Amino acid sequence: MSRDVAEVHARATWSALVEPGDAVAGTLVGLLGAVEALDWVRAADRHGADLVRLEEVRGPLTDADRRRVLKAVARWAVRLPDCDPGRDLEALDRLRGTLLVPGDPRWPTALDDLGTGAPFCVWVRGEPELRETLTLAVAVVGSRAATSYGERVAFDLADGLAAEGLCVVSGGAYGIDAAAHRGAVTRGGRTLVVLAGGVDRAYPAGNARLLDAVVASGGALLSEVPPGSLPTRSRFLQRNRLIAAAGRATVVVEAAWRSGAMSTAHHAARLLRPVGAVPGPVTSMASAGCHRLLREGVAVCVTDAAEVRELAGVIGSGVAAVAEAASAADERAARRRDALDPLSQRVLDALSRRVPTELDRLASLAGVTVAEARGAVGLLELEGWAGRRGDGWVAARPDEP
Amino acid sequence: MSRDVAEVHARATWSALVEPGDAVAGTLVGLLGAVEALDWVRAADRHGADLVRLEEVRGPLTDADRRRVLKAVARWAVRLPDCDPGRDLEALDRLRGTLLVPGDPRWPTALDDLGTGAPFCVWVRGEPELRETLTLAVAVVGSRAATSYGERVAFDLADGLAAEGLCVVSGGAYGIDAAAHRGAVTRGGRTLVVLAGGVDRAYPAGNARLLDAVVASGGALLSEVPPGSLPTRSRFLQRNRLIAAAGRATVVVEAAWRSGAMSTAHHAARLLRPVGAVPGPVTSMASAGCHRLLREGVAVCVTDAAEVRELAGVIGSGVAAVAEAASAADERAARRRDALDPLSQRVLDALSRRVPTELDRLASLAGVTVAEARGAVGLLELEGWAGRRGDGWVAARPDEP
Repeated sequence: MSRDVAEVHARATWSALVEPGDAVAGTLVGLLGAVEALDWVRAADRHGADLVRLEEVRGPLTDADRRRVLKAVARWAVRLPDCDPGRDLEALDRLRGTLLVPGDPRWPTALDDLGTGAPFCVWVRGEPELRETLTLAVAVVGSRAATSYGERVAFDLADGLAAEGLCVVSGGAYGIDAAAHRGAVTRGGRTLVVLAGGVDRAYPAGNARLLDAVVASGGALLSEVPPGSLPTRSRFLQRNRLIAAAGRATVVVEAAWRSGAMSTAHHAARLLRPVGAVPGPVTSMASAGCHRLLREGVAVCVTDAAEVRELAGVIGSGVAAVAEAASAADERAARRRDALDPLSQRVLDALSRRVPTELDRLASLAGVTVAEARGAVGLLELEGWAGRRGDGWVAARPDEP
Repeated sequence: MSRDVAEVHARATWSALVEPGDAVAGTLVGLLGAVEALDWVRAADRHGADLVRLEEVRGPLTDADRRRVLKAVARWAVRLPDCDPGRDLEALDRLRGTLLVPGDPRWPTALDDLGTGAPFCVWVRGEPELRETLTLAVAVVGSRAATSYGERVAFDLADGLAAEGLCVVSGGAYGIDAAAHRGAVTRGGRTLVVLAGGVDRAYPAGNARLLDAVVASGGALLSEVPPGSLPTRSRFLQRNRLIAAAGRATVVVEAAWRSGAMSTAHHAARLLRPVGAVPGPVTSMASAGCHRLLREGVAVCVTDAAEVRELAGVIGSGVAAVAEAASAADERAARRRDALDPLSQRVLDALSRRVPTELDRLASLAGVTVAEARGAVGLLELEGWAGRRGDGWVAARPDEP
């Protein structure tokens, strides 16, 4: 077996042997490398744990360290006989999938920010070029029990992000996850579905067609556990750290007060990734988690794709940028009236659009001198805000500059 | 005329003579007192401005200062002949109203935070004891063009604040203002309506009955301009500073991107009063201003009366406090599962509620040793999370402690 093949097999084995996020396993693989660490575990299973070898690479172990290692070895021993990377890789082959390990040029380096909690490998169905894809990716997460409002917002956000070439990262659940994938796929964009179980299992089954559509439009399904693995509750919780690490930023669309999406948001915050929350009606419990994130300062308020891009530090272009420019023009137009000096504003306030007002009456209404009113109304006429009619003046609306 | 009566008449005159927020007038009254300042203006109207007297109290004036003063004197001269405090006070008497001036024990000292922009006096219809009332007051403001969602939230917030004995401060407009007054009045609470025109004018007229109801339930209408004054646009903008100063905190329920409510929020922020914004659907333009305040960090996200009280630094009691305690109990209950150690959680995840699982199968499912599974399931049984059935174990729901 070549060194590379051995490394791939060892990491595939680790991903089957231990539960996601097992810190002892992460440390051991970090110290010895995946291949030697696995040999060490096999030897430990037969002859007892070689703690001397660990002390060679790590320095002296405390009694607590020793106990943790021995407990871990006993825990792993239960599963060791069942691990068969060849079988798992064959299952992946049948899905035309790819196993990515660190060092592969396609490996999503964003996941390395998880440190010893990084996955040993990722099992991918669909497009395996993840490193580049994830340099422009945003996680969009939220409640399974979403409202139609939340699903609409998730769809629109993902649509807007996809229009700018961003990849949307989410889970595979009903509600916000599904709406986000659907929004991006409908726009022809890429999405990444991070699953708690194996990539051969659509969970829930009702989303199977959506997941196929994700793969068909150049996206991918990703899992840190081998094909055939069940999506357990603790795997769902661990899965959230991968979603948070895969996105440059995480946006929560709807989330109950306590929910998986909240855990993803907190994972993102711990990774120093920006977190956004989409507000909703305060009468909707589905938005309570978002409002909590805003109140606690964990998240920034985001209301559209442009604000999400800003959050993620991605400069806009294309459709969204044009819409933004139009909105900025509205804003400028609205500011023009405020840009008038206070005297002119006061005089303009006192003018009617229909009934002409004479100068001395205008001065009294506006509470200014007749000279001030004369000067102000002259300036207003020049800028198109006022016009003469008979002996008096009326208000007008100036043309756009 | 006694000194007090002279002071009251002078301040009533100032409130008719100059537009709200006139900084030159505020400075002049601050330097000379209301009575002497008015005598000075009358003399200036007849003989020219006595700048030497001003320099006696203020020190040397710059050329710019002189020009500002002379322009102001000319501006005031237009209105001076029409000022008649006796007539205005009689009009107030007919409304059974009260003129409050600084120094009156009922004067709302909260307004003094406006400095030279503080009103000279306030014309009050209804309950004139404002000092004490405003020590526990919150401004609730928002859009005239409110949605039914916004009106519902404003009503409920005001209801909750009134239930805790807080006074609600707002304008007299349709939409959020009216809904807030209605919510407080329905609960039997006090509200303060701050008007841009005179307190004899319900503006808009459709709210006249509501304003009567405010007065009937112990609240008040307040204006810094005399009865009969028109509510002009610039008076509306200046009125917003009074609302912001009258509340310990300001809450914006719904506001367009640019609106009077936004100006009130910024006035409150400049006064270092806390600002809250109620989120809403991002698809609703009526909430765009609230979301902007949240994004820009001007406002804190608030979703109910308890959070508004917290914002205003008012400790809860009564009905709302009971509701909060109940919600906290829910939260504690939900946290109990998370408080289990990770091993117990993992074993609990692997247990079914219906189908008993034997120990070795449980260990494999949970990815733990048989010894760990045995220990964990024993602890879970003690705490009521698991129970024996036949040769295996099932998950259970523990009683509340």
